[in-house]
Amino acid sequence: MSEKIKVKEKELQEFCTEVLKAAGVPGDDAGIVAASLVDADLAGTGSHGVTRMSDYLGRMEQGLVSPVTKIDLVRETPSTALLDANDGWGQVASERAVELAVRKAGEVGSAWVGVRNSNHNGTAAYWTEKIARQGMVGICSMNTSPVMAAHGSKRPTLGTNPLSIAVPSSSGRPVVLDMATSNQARGKIILAAKNDDPIPEGWAITQEGLPTTDAKEALKGSVLPLGGPKGSGLAIMLDILSGVLTGASFGASMPRMYDDPAPQRVGHIFSAIDIEVFMPPDEFLARMDEKERETREGPPAPGFERVRMPGDGRHERQAERRAHGIPLSREVYAELLDLAGRYGVPTGKLERGVVSG
Amino acid sequence: MSEKIKVKEKELQEFCTEVLKAAGVPGDDAGIVAASLVDADLAGTGSHGVTRMSDYLGRMEQGLVSPVTKIDLVRETPSTALLDANDGWGQVASERAVELAVRKAGEVGSAWVGVRNSNHNGTAAYWTEKIARQGMVGICSMNTSPVMAAHGSKRPTLGTNPLSIAVPSSSGRPVVLDMATSNQARGKIILAAKNDDPIPEGWAITQEGLPTTDAKEALKGSVLPLGGPKGSGLAIMLDILSGVLTGASFGASMPRMYDDPAPQRVGHIFSAIDIEVFMPPDEFLARMDEKERETREGPPAPGFERVRMPGDGRHERQAERRAHGIPLSREVYAELLDLAGRYGVPTGKLERGVVSG
Repeated sequence: MSEKIKVKEKELQEFCTEVLKAAGVPGDDAGIVAASLVDADLAGTGSHGVTRMSDYLGRMEQGLVSPVTKIDLVRETPSTALLDANDGWGQVASERAVELAVRKAGEVGSAWVGVRNSNHNGTAAYWTEKIARQGMVGICSMNTSPVMAAHGSKRPTLGTNPLSIAVPSSSGRPVVLDMATSNQARGKIILAAKNDDPIPEGWAITQEGLPTTDAKEALKGSVLPLGGPKGSGLAIMLDILSGVLTGASFGASMPRMYDDPAPQRVGHIFSAIDIEVFMPPDEFLARMDEKERETREGPPAPGFERVRMPGDGRHERQAERRAHGIPLSREVYAELLDLAGRYGVPTGKLERGVVSG
Repeated sequence: MSEKIKVKEKELQEFCTEVLKAAGVPGDDAGIVAASLVDADLAGTGSHGVTRMSDYLGRMEQGLVSPVTKIDLVRETPSTALLDANDGWGQVASERAVELAVRKAGEVGSAWVGVRNSNHNGTAAYWTEKIARQGMVGICSMNTSPVMAAHGSKRPTLGTNPLSIAVPSSSGRPVVLDMATSNQARGKIILAAKNDDPIPEGWAITQEGLPTTDAKEALKGSVLPLGGPKGSGLAIMLDILSGVLTGASFGASMPRMYDDPAPQRVGHIFSAIDIEVFMPPDEFLARMDEKERETREGPPAPGFERVRMPGDGRHERQAERRAHGIPLSREVYAELLDLAGRYGVPTGKLERGVVSG
């Protein structure tokens, strides 16, 4: 028996949409949230996938996330906008922000759109890919719960604030970078703590600011930024762009998703640049072909099979999982069935989507 | 006797301007280039300071950099522009690009401006600080000569493409990040090679793609990207934004500044976002005060005296050197005197600027 249960994309997405709707999320919004979660599972970033359904709905039940996302357009210029998500769904606000950024970039060449008082919106790559598929450069960042110390500090005042940049490619699959500004994902430390495994030095520090290889001590302490001052500086600047500038929470005062019973009021920032305002799209794609070829042809260093462009792994996993199903752990699968029970949603659709396991 | 010669900012800048003018660079342009170089020396990034005078002029004498920078506005929309620097001075083109980005952001809220067929333009922080001093967020990147291998490759197809982001602060000194996407500056490896010192593992690989601690082998090989795939991915995306998108050189085909007798045709990319289109500037500065305070108050981890905001070191060194003179090595000082001799510029101004050494 396989450890994982493989489920078809379409059925998983429709099932999650039904659960969200039954929980009180309007139909279109439920579809937007479900699409973002399933995309993350397809891409192999399960930490941002349907496992979040119960976390999200738990926070909604506590009144920390509004079921209906009322979005206010706070300020607007021809190339910028600021949205207030009023504690609604991060994905719903981000979908609107991306639409607005793309529309404005189409009108005046480029745009920056900020969102405040929002919530977790899935992977940053999901949003930049959407922009890239419109023939534009997409950029996205956001600030997250404080789990990372600034370089030289022992107090976590930073999220692992990700930066994503995506551009179109003639392959139809955007080249897309999505990087956290931490040295390692906190999820790996959580897993090591569960398994009583040590973690490598450089991943985290204790509450006292001392290097540690003890995963449990690390979880009480702080994740370390990517490459010391560089990742730390980048995380600070991204907190400023997505949090300070938008009027969202920022720094140490942002509530933690799992621990703090307060609305997070996360900030997001998006930019879109129309390729066409720099060069004809065909010329750009031909130049990208050369850049992609040059990079992938490496040649690889000893110990590596090949060299990849940012996003290659994401696209490969998505293709494989679209064809053969999305592997979910038995725990996550059971969580989904539980949610169906709680909200009175039939489980038939999910069960019919199972291809193996 | 001090090893360094300390020179006053004003005299150094005026002297460099005179030398550039005597070499055929128009007066205003000479002032722009000299200001950027002296700013780098003030900030403590001497690798981008007046030591470049002889490199720049050497390339100009070879016909690789045009003394007169003819800038074409290739494409323009309300929020974007593409400039062609026609192999002129990187600083002169960047000054124009920054002016244009700030003007457009003032008009429509935000802007992206690209430059192609340009040359080295000094530090990225110099340009983002200029934008921040106009009450805007400033972003700048550029692509540089290929000295870094993409993650998993043994061939240098990437520059150490820097990313700089700056924002205004109530202190009057912008918070400014300026990070190369390499693990370490190549300059440190050059220095180690000169001194026959070993370098730490993780800094570089040999031509064959093997880890090395031999600085000379490292110089024949490749610098490694910051944190492996993350720094590599970021450098690739910045090469795409500043090189592929603008129509500049990119990747492995960009000529090296010191080795290749061909115009580099570097690309730059700038963005400006008017703070005011997101919130009243006073409110932003008050929020920045909080972010700065929270970060600097750390508290510091064991082994650290204090926690810094990005750019703190830069501003401290600038204040100190403005007050007490800019330390130049005897070699660099001698180079400047040589240039004065070559172009028939009196050395009195530089000599009168010497405060010690």
